[in-house]
Amino acid sequence: MRPVGILGGMGPEATILLQRKLVDAVPARDDAGHIPLMIDMNPQVPSRIAHLIEGTGESPAPVLAAMAARLEAMGATAMAMPCNTAHHYAGAIRGAARIPFLDMVALSAAACAGADGGRVGMLASPAVRRTALFERAFAAHGLEAVWPDDDAGVLASIRAIKAGGASEAAAAGLREASAHLAEAGMRVQLVACTEFSLAVELLPDGVDARDTLDALVAAIVAHATAPVEGRLPLG
Amino acid sequence: MRPVGILGGMGPEATILLQRKLVDAVPARDDAGHIPLMIDMNPQVPSRIAHLIEGTGESPAPVLAAMAARLEAMGATAMAMPCNTAHHYAGAIRGAARIPFLDMVALSAAACAGADGGRVGMLASPAVRRTALFERAFAAHGLEAVWPDDDAGVLASIRAIKAGGASEAAAAGLREASAHLAEAGMRVQLVACTEFSLAVELLPDGVDARDTLDALVAAIVAHATAPVEGRLPLG
Repeated sequence: MRPVGILGGMGPEATILLQRKLVDAVPARDDAGHIPLMIDMNPQVPSRIAHLIEGTGESPAPVLAAMAARLEAMGATAMAMPCNTAHHYAGAIRGAARIPFLDMVALSAAACAGADGGRVGMLASPAVRRTALFERAFAAHGLEAVWPDDDAGVLASIRAIKAGGASEAAAAGLREASAHLAEAGMRVQLVACTEFSLAVELLPDGVDARDTLDALVAAIVAHATAPVEGRLPLG
Repeated sequence: MRPVGILGGMGPEATILLQRKLVDAVPARDDAGHIPLMIDMNPQVPSRIAHLIEGTGESPAPVLAAMAARLEAMGATAMAMPCNTAHHYAGAIRGAARIPFLDMVALSAAACAGADGGRVGMLASPAVRRTALFERAFAAHGLEAVWPDDDAGVLASIRAIKAGGASEAAAAGLREASAHLAEAGMRVQLVACTEFSLAVELLPDGVDARDTLDALVAAIVAHATAPVEGRLPLG
């Protein structure tokens, strides 16, 4: 199988969840059946929220570019990054390495194609909203991103999950945002913050939640197990 | 904090559990409070069991040495490997890099010092038994390793956990070995196979289980958070 490089640590829990989903995604009978990964678990990447919302922090772009170059040097054959907000800096990542970047935002937009009425409720960081990351990706699929009213509640939920894990209390802001979107007719909702991927089971009933992390998992499995030099996908 | 390199993928579940324990081990209020890791998740490292027990496989030593050199080149300041059996090849790992190797076997032996009567029940791979890895490490602490009778049952349990996770059924051989050791007077038992670290909660009541993975976690936290160049431990 072909090793995939992971720009990780944003946050560590989400990077662990990605690995857990990749283990579950392949029919392995022993260690060797699992996907090789090179993971740069770097929780010290400058805060995306501080840079994009508060305007107080430095840009994460140079750090992410250095991580990408290092993963390519280690032998990674593609890159993936389990953090939606950090995809704002995808240009710097692509510019730093020749291997393909498996773009979670583009992959997730494709996974939402055909949603009821072309409208998708967004469960994401206000930083993602501000960068219009998904609006641009949705355009290619005729989709419209619909956002919850309460940015503050969503942001508080992200910070609470980063600080203490995905508890009912930490996910309160997420649940409220999801409920409001459902009331507004958004049955299809995109979990577009990997902290929220940790709390998917806490979403209100009846919501058709599509998880950006699952779209990334599918792309990593497809890349890693693609036949190369005559080897079998799981060989 | 100082990044630690992980020689991982033996198996992937154990490498994920190490990360989970490291996240829980630090009092982080945000991503930046967590320990930076460079993880070579390489499930294709040649089987230690095939090489040491069946005599059919190639030696994992060259692959492990290459992983160590690569982690050092990436900027890791120390190395750790969440697989007890693979510590048989620690010499090749140490020889391939200048950064320190946090030796889980030596750390675990120290954690068992003072065990009742100096005897420790071993919950480990028959491959570890054959290499006398722990007998050598225990000697420095006046400890004696006591092994279960049924190697086959223990090995079957390791393979079942690698294949399908730590279910009650998969852990049957482990539970039986632990019960027999307890009947033989071994209250202190060392979980010295990281597949068994995934099943610690399935051990019989009354056993004082010491997990080799916990000894490694403590050493990684101590190394990563040690003050460097005037920075605060969690700075």
